[in-house]
Amino acid sequence: MKEFKVKVEVKLKPVVLDPQGKTILTALHNLGYDEVEETRVGKLIELKVMDSNAERVIERVKEMCKNLLANPIIEDFVIKIE
Amino acid sequence: MKEFKVKVEVKLKPVVLDPQGKTILTALHNLGYDEVEETRVGKLIELKVMDSNAERVIERVKEMCKNLLANPIIEDFVIKIE
Repeated sequence: MKEFKVKVEVKLKPVVLDPQGKTILTALHNLGYDEVEETRVGKLIELKVMDSNAERVIERVKEMCKNLLANPIIEDFVIKIE
Repeated sequence: MKEFKVKVEVKLKPVVLDPQGKTILTALHNLGYDEVEETRVGKLIELKVMDSNAERVIERVKEMCKNLLANPIIEDFVIKIE
């Protein structure tokens, strides 16, 4: 058994509007950061997983994303293992 | 002028409690994912920045984090540029 650190990035699909990102963009412009052209906000979920097999970890985390961590209708996810 | 894609990871400091992460952990266990030992939730902010100088981009984004994107009292941030 080994401890795996897994990072899951959950982002809104590009076609989905992101009002939180838009609000941040407006705030950045108001603060004078006019060089920023777009802002999108997602979630970063870090998991510690005990397992002996890295491939199974990825398979299982993919399942977790589909079942709980992400909403596949409006969100994409990326899994990174360390 | 070039377009830089910047990723900012905003995470709660390790000493700060993360009730959202705890809730996700409980839900994962209820779904049978008992191999997960810890869950922490952070924000992932993606910026498109127009600039000619990558170092200045990092400097400016660091400022944005301190001023708006993160709460330095309870959060750490990591800036990655593509």
